[in-house]
Formats: sequence, structure tokens, C-alpha cells
Amino acid sequence: MKKKKAIMEIPIIRDVLEESNALARENRALFDQQKIFVVNIMSSPGSGKTTLLQKTIPLLQKYGLRTAVIEGDITSTLDSERLKPLGIPVVQANTEPFGGDCHVGAHLVQAALKYLDLSALDILFIENIGNLVCPAEFYIGEDRKVVVLSTTEGEDKPLKYPLMFRECGVCVISKMDLAPHLDINVDLLKSNIRKTNAQIKILPLSSKTGEGLDAWVEWLMKKS
Amino acid sequence: MKKKKAIMEIPIIRDVLEESNALARENRALFDQQKIFVVNIMSSPGSGKTTLLQKTIPLLQKYGLRTAVIEGDITSTLDSERLKPLGIPVVQANTEPFGGDCHVGAHLVQAALKYLDLSALDILFIENIGNLVCPAEFYIGEDRKVVVLSTTEGEDKPLKYPLMFRECGVCVISKMDLAPHLDINVDLLKSNIRKTNAQIKILPLSSKTGEGLDAWVEWLMKKS
Repeated sequence: MKKKKAIMEIPIIRDVLEESNALARENRALFDQQKIFVVNIMSSPGSGKTTLLQKTIPLLQKYGLRTAVIEGDITSTLDSERLKPLGIPVVQANTEPFGGDCHVGAHLVQAALKYLDLSALDILFIENIGNLVCPAEFYIGEDRKVVVLSTTEGEDKPLKYPLMFRECGVCVISKMDLAPHLDINVDLLKSNIRKTNAQIKILPLSSKTGEGLDAWVEWLMKKS
Repeated sequence: MKKKKAIMEIPIIRDVLEESNALARENRALFDQQKIFVVNIMSSPGSGKTTLLQKTIPLLQKYGLRTAVIEGDITSTLDSERLKPLGIPVVQANTEPFGGDCHVGAHLVQAALKYLDLSALDILFIENIGNLVCPAEFYIGEDRKVVVLSTTEGEDKPLKYPLMFRECGVCVISKMDLAPHLDINVDLLKSNIRKTNAQIKILPLSSKTGEGLDAWVEWLMKKS
């Protein structure tokens, strides 16, 4: 009985992953065709992904860069409403109609892209669902994966959730303004990030005070 | 092709869930037999589950309650090492050997229970993997599910991750000491929690200052 199940399960899981990767490659081809730089932003819930976008996009606009955001959530339009005042295209992509998935899948990105004029974009941000585990497992066609880790989450997270940090090209350390009120050792945090991924670029910043935002914007502009 | 897959997939997902629930019921039978109160603690990464246990367990010990912890993680023994000084039985249950699962499953609890003398326990804490999404979907044999939400995560989380708040009997609002340094409206947070689950007990506390710990310990003692 157990053996039979294992035999049945494996090909289906492979099918699902292969299908997902095929869709991601289709997304990728579209992005390449339109020369769009696509950033998949991931983090725990409440680490400050939306706030970072609220502060980043006006800075990019100053340099004439045209941006859009796909807002991944399980349910609600709260995050896309926060981005509305920026005046850029925002698509709320909820997983609830797809079974409440815990990550943004390539199929969801594909569905969201239909609402965007890709020819009018330089950078597309995909804000993933707040989850430090599952989103790291899926390629959705992005150029770069970025993880946001807030100072309030503690120094140990890169060691406890290594896949996320291994998969990402950049780690933004957010809420640096709160560090003086916490028992956090930022050097130890950085060293734990590097232990997990020696190549990762670490960008400490505070969306509240603006400290460190320049380096992040510079990285985005260099890559895009 | 698509239709064939759908037909194959559904029974397997049902099998897996049924198997999981059967194992959870076996765990439950053991807990009933030994009269152990079992609390499944869930939250985002870094919300303060381990710190809460570090502060709670000595208070329970004062009242003569015998506790143990199953520490769920994907990888590492960092959390169980933090609990070692308490001198209680701690079992580190990592999902990495089980494919890096994003939640503690009933099978993992069952495996961990082999390392505990259940006849010498009053309360068993299961610290789930830091994830506000997936752990809420699985019954593992516990008496109560508890969600810890820190003030740093923002007021909107109950609306964005409703399943977790619907499934839990208690919501601990942690890191209350940080509230003065944040732009958080705690009343709005409480109202969003209640909007999602009108029955949930809300316990604001700070593991750092000790504020609110009494009410949490009182709840545990009443239930156990």
C-alpha cells in the first residue's frame, strides 16, 4: 500500500514542478522580450516588504524608471491599496482562488501579467506571500530573488531557514532604526547570512529613516 | 492530460491528509491516556516563540507543573539549545530529513514522542516551524493551537493570514515592550484579530519585561 502510493506520488510531484518551471520560462521569455528587470521579494510576514516598495518606487521614479508591482497575498487587497497612491500599475494576485497557496507560483504571475502593459515597464517587483520557507522553492521567471529580514527577527534566522538565504542574491536587513531597542547583534546576523551564502549582497536599511535606501536603489538601477 | 492529472491528484492528497489525521489521533490517544495538555505554538519566524517558552516554563515549574518541549525546525538545534538550561526534556524535531517540510506534521510529533517519558509530564509544548501559513492547516493531536504575533509585524496580519487566526484558541501579542517605538495601533490589531475570530482569547505580553506573562500562565494552568 505504502509502496504503491510512493510510486504514484513521485511522478505527479515532478509533473507539477515541471509544469511550474515551464510557466516560469514562459514568463522569463516575456520579460526578456520586453527587457524588464524582475525582482521577487520574499520575507516573513511583517518584515517590511510593502513599506520598502512604498519608499523605493518614488526614488526610482526620480530617475525616470517605470515600475509596477504584482502583490502576492493569500487574501485581501490591503497591500495593493497601500501602493495605490504611488500611481504605478499594481496587480493584486491572491492565492485564495488557487487553494490558498503559501507562495506566489509561476501560474499566478502569468495570470497577473495580463493586467500589465509590459512595454511600458523597466522594473517589475513581485511581492511574495509573507513566508520564509515555501516561496524560496519556486522559480517564477524572476531575474533576482531578494530576501528582506527585519532586525526584530533575530540573528539566527539564516541558519534556521537556509534555503531562502541560499536562493537570494540580496538580503535587505530592514528596520535598522529599531536595532537600538533590541538585543540584536547586527554583525552576528551578517556573519550568519554569509555563513549560509558567501556570495549574497547584504543591504541594511531603514524604510522609516531612509538610512541605506540609496545603496538598495543603486543596486536596482545597476541591475535593471 | 490535465483531466487525468486532476483525477490522479485528488485521491492522493486525500490519502496524505487522512494518514496525517490518523497519526494525529494516535498522538491524541496517547496524550489522553497520560493526561497531558498539549499546546501547538505557531507564528512567523522571529515572533518570540522560544523566548516565550524560556520565560513561561520556570513560572510553571514554580507551581510544580512538569513540562517538555518538542522543538520543530527545518534544520539546526539552535532553539533546543536555548531551552537546555531549563533542565526539562527537549526534543529537537527537524523536518530536513523529511524533505524540509514547512510545518510540524503528526508523524514528526509521533517520532519525537519516543524520546519523552510521557508519564512524567503535565504540559507538552510543540513549537512549530516559523510560518504563519502552512502549520495552521495540520492537526497534530494537540489540545490547543496558539498563535504568537509580535507588535513589529503590523496590524494587518490577521486579515492577511486568516486561517491561522481562525484555527487558534489563543493569540499572544508578543513584544509589547517595543510598541512605543513602532507606529502600531494595538487596538486596531486586536480588532482585526477579533474580526477574524470572535472567540479567540487575546493575551498581550512582553517576554522581556514580564508584563502580561501572568495571564498567559494562568490560562495554561486552568486548561492543563
